[in-house]
Amino acid sequence: MTEQAGYYGKRRKWHSWGYEDEVISQAEVKEMAVRVGKRLGIDEPVVLSDPTLEEIELRESRISIPASLSSFCNSDKWDRVSHSYGKSFKDLTRIFRRDFTNPPDVIAYPRNEAEVAAVLDWCGDNGYAAIPYGGGSSVTDGFTAPEDCDGSVIIDLGNMNQVLEVDPVSRCALIQAGTLGPSLEDQLKPHGLTLRHIPQSWEFSSLGGWIATRSSGHYATHLTHIDDMVQSLRVVTPRGTIENRRLPGSGAGPDPDRLFIGSEGSLGIITQAWMKLQGRVVFRANATITFDTFYQGAAAIRQITQAGLFPANCRYLDAQDAQFYGAGDGTKSVLLLGFESADHPVDVWLERGVEICQDHGGEVVTKTGSGGDALKSSRSGAQGNWREQFRYLPRLMHTRAAMGVVSFTFETAYTWDKFEAVDTEIIRRVSEAQKALTGGGIVCRRFSFLYPDGPAPYYSVVAPSTHETSLEHYQALSDVASDAISELGATITHHHAVGRSFRPWYDKEVDPLFRDMLAGAKNAVDPDWIMNPGMLLDRSNHLKIVG
Amino acid sequence: MTEQAGYYGKRRKWHSWGYEDEVISQAEVKEMAVRVGKRLGIDEPVVLSDPTLEEIELRESRISIPASLSSFCNSDKWDRVSHSYGKSFKDLTRIFRRDFTNPPDVIAYPRNEAEVAAVLDWCGDNGYAAIPYGGGSSVTDGFTAPEDCDGSVIIDLGNMNQVLEVDPVSRCALIQAGTLGPSLEDQLKPHGLTLRHIPQSWEFSSLGGWIATRSSGHYATHLTHIDDMVQSLRVVTPRGTIENRRLPGSGAGPDPDRLFIGSEGSLGIITQAWMKLQGRVVFRANATITFDTFYQGAAAIRQITQAGLFPANCRYLDAQDAQFYGAGDGTKSVLLLGFESADHPVDVWLERGVEICQDHGGEVVTKTGSGGDALKSSRSGAQGNWREQFRYLPRLMHTRAAMGVVSFTFETAYTWDKFEAVDTEIIRRVSEAQKALTGGGIVCRRFSFLYPDGPAPYYSVVAPSTHETSLEHYQALSDVASDAISELGATITHHHAVGRSFRPWYDKEVDPLFRDMLAGAKNAVDPDWIMNPGMLLDRSNHLKIVG
Repeated sequence: MTEQAGYYGKRRKWHSWGYEDEVISQAEVKEMAVRVGKRLGIDEPVVLSDPTLEEIELRESRISIPASLSSFCNSDKWDRVSHSYGKSFKDLTRIFRRDFTNPPDVIAYPRNEAEVAAVLDWCGDNGYAAIPYGGGSSVTDGFTAPEDCDGSVIIDLGNMNQVLEVDPVSRCALIQAGTLGPSLEDQLKPHGLTLRHIPQSWEFSSLGGWIATRSSGHYATHLTHIDDMVQSLRVVTPRGTIENRRLPGSGAGPDPDRLFIGSEGSLGIITQAWMKLQGRVVFRANATITFDTFYQGAAAIRQITQAGLFPANCRYLDAQDAQFYGAGDGTKSVLLLGFESADHPVDVWLERGVEICQDHGGEVVTKTGSGGDALKSSRSGAQGNWREQFRYLPRLMHTRAAMGVVSFTFETAYTWDKFEAVDTEIIRRVSEAQKALTGGGIVCRRFSFLYPDGPAPYYSVVAPSTHETSLEHYQALSDVASDAISELGATITHHHAVGRSFRPWYDKEVDPLFRDMLAGAKNAVDPDWIMNPGMLLDRSNHLKIVG
Repeated sequence: MTEQAGYYGKRRKWHSWGYEDEVISQAEVKEMAVRVGKRLGIDEPVVLSDPTLEEIELRESRISIPASLSSFCNSDKWDRVSHSYGKSFKDLTRIFRRDFTNPPDVIAYPRNEAEVAAVLDWCGDNGYAAIPYGGGSSVTDGFTAPEDCDGSVIIDLGNMNQVLEVDPVSRCALIQAGTLGPSLEDQLKPHGLTLRHIPQSWEFSSLGGWIATRSSGHYATHLTHIDDMVQSLRVVTPRGTIENRRLPGSGAGPDPDRLFIGSEGSLGIITQAWMKLQGRVVFRANATITFDTFYQGAAAIRQITQAGLFPANCRYLDAQDAQFYGAGDGTKSVLLLGFESADHPVDVWLERGVEICQDHGGEVVTKTGSGGDALKSSRSGAQGNWREQFRYLPRLMHTRAAMGVVSFTFETAYTWDKFEAVDTEIIRRVSEAQKALTGGGIVCRRFSFLYPDGPAPYYSVVAPSTHETSLEHYQALSDVASDAISELGATITHHHAVGRSFRPWYDKEVDPLFRDMLAGAKNAVDPDWIMNPGMLLDRSNHLKIVG
């Protein structure tokens, strides 16, 4: 038995979000389909049935596994199918189309670094693509097998899921890369500590995946990106293991960890990391504030982020987004503003934040400080509805693909000076394309993460389509969005990584000389170019510099 | 006339800190010498006279300047002498020994990027070492010419000293790399903005230098390193110009700016940067708190840094350091705790900080919030004395070299869990070596910069010696300190960069495979390996990977 057990010893659904023993009722699926259909003017959406393993036709594995690796590698159908796709709309649609034309050949479940290194050696000797896999939640084609290789091996870190060491004095822990969000927090809890990094994929994404993709998590400001929580990394590369010194800060050369953070498996496999932790939250204060227009509230939020208040939550939903999450009635933009601390009451921070909102015409719907029950208020009303939806929604996202509509999100970041102009133009272009292509649909957005110098807007797109056209409509609309982002000087991804999906726009965003530097760095640790081919770089990028 | 004018059009002293028109009286020098002598038990220190240009014997320049570059390059004696050394104790001692055995051959003062590129082309064609120079304040031999080259060209960015563009909405500015601290702030002031990055070298160090060396500045916590204030860089390399997109945040591959931050001129020349700014300080609150022992206060400070209070100042001097700065009587450790904001009163933050100190046995000497004049209190008493000394001291540091004692500082960073053990051991080793070598002397330390996971202690060493032995004694003691840091798992530099001085210990600190990656990256933009040879890397590091 080489199948991944994971920390909880339960098997995941191979075609959608959640564990096998979690039943999503047909009533729930139907309700979701009707709700989405209603928004798009589709009366009776046809929801495809979940695919069964028997329905999937799979190419034979092109690789035979040597005896020395057979205790933790296999080519079983379930394993290959369940590691073929991530969780994007495109992935889910391909799953519902029962399209598995390019599955990986072998899935490896190493239990330690020696086994990781052994797999890389084997891939190097045979020219197989070596593809690291954390929780499988990629929405950017971040671990799909390359089309043009003779064999691909997915390296699933799920068995490396332990918190190995806790340093309560410096508030850090050494954590294995395959640890998923819930088990990571379960293991830290007895120490009174938390990483408090909670992307929407938290249940089924891993520490190593967060680092390799520059994930953003819980904090709206200050500690948004996982980048700033990494103390030091350990990475197994085809040429050997790199371990960076555990330091709170240094000026000794370029920060070595930063080259691996965001490397998307192209340089090696992050096996463990010393992470900087937080004390568990004791004090909370939060408020729900509405604004008549999205830009009115955005101005308030800009001032808050530039005031040095560091709200933990500063989620700002436009009227449509708020309505969808049950956090508003669809007439106003809604700001969920929250402060938290393990050390001291945060009422003063909230008061100043609310004051800034009121100066910009914001209307306070609820406000709860230390006099009230801020934990309760964060889990009820607009705040609670949003929280519930945010956490539960991934379980139902496959419904969108199964009902033949187009449904996707994209995120970016750009500076405040051009925020209104760029946001307006992005929405205009996507809306127009949507109308031309599908006859209608919705584009809405929110802020999840914010910087003093600019917001990271997150756009949601839903449009009517059919089972025959949804994938093509998705691609066309996604391309319009990506072109707009790229041309308007924003970034092609704020926290979903580049993957295969956004590679053409990454190539426009990154300076070609920096890409050459990255290629030179890669070549130093991956001379056979086996690591996750196509991520960020191609071999041709390197050939260019060596001539 | 190709001599550097700089923003203020004044010429600097070539042998010590300050402008030529700033007269340091012999009385002042004498007072400093007597003060230091008294601490070390030297009755009548012999202070050498300032060197004159006539006294310096200089090798002929080995390079003839082509006509196309002659409008901004020269080989004049003043220029070559004034660009031979930085400002370390070792540099100043060599200057007072009139030892200029390896001067640069040409000093270039490019006025724009085209001229920077032209110099790099010329160096590449001829195999000259191309060495970027900002303010010349290096204390780690960061721009001295390599011994083994046939010609070296210092590229002084002093004429590229303008704030080119200000974006008040996103609170950012595009600033040329050669801009020194005071002119940078002078140019930002009319916009109500500030970079607020104030290393001790501020008057004579440049934006490009801060970025290339990962300088630390004003902020004790949160925005300590310049790294976090960079929005995007522009770098001229021998293979062309790299410009990174101006983004508040991104998840698109490894952050390209981070590879240049701390690259010490080894990858190219940073010519300009979009920097993230702050609003000018309106609200202040501060307190002076004493502790009976250094470790008692360190425990309080750890709690403050982990509480998310983000003090702007959290300078903690041990009893000896405090006495030296006129901030204490030598019996207690002194904490200068300060909060500041452009947006809101910071009394609550200070109150909580003070409360934590009191919980750890700290005694409040002064405390000034919005009810008092916190600006005044930050510029009088212990706070004011420290501030004055900190700012003025560089003007007198040459006195140490001129009087034949040993005087140097070193900084590092390591995690809180081992703080007491490592600190004790570092002090034990240096003290013992000092006693054995020079018969006595002082080792004291302070915290300037702090992280939730560890402090960045800064050690000062002063020891009696003679004009004949001071350099050798310095080197022996510095080596003991560097060995201790390296062996005890700390970093060889927190904010002074590696330079030539600490290269052997950097080579122990950095993972050899990461160094190979850096070499691969360098080779992609500097194929002739002309950029600041010997900084971080040697050509042999690259030959190893290409075989």
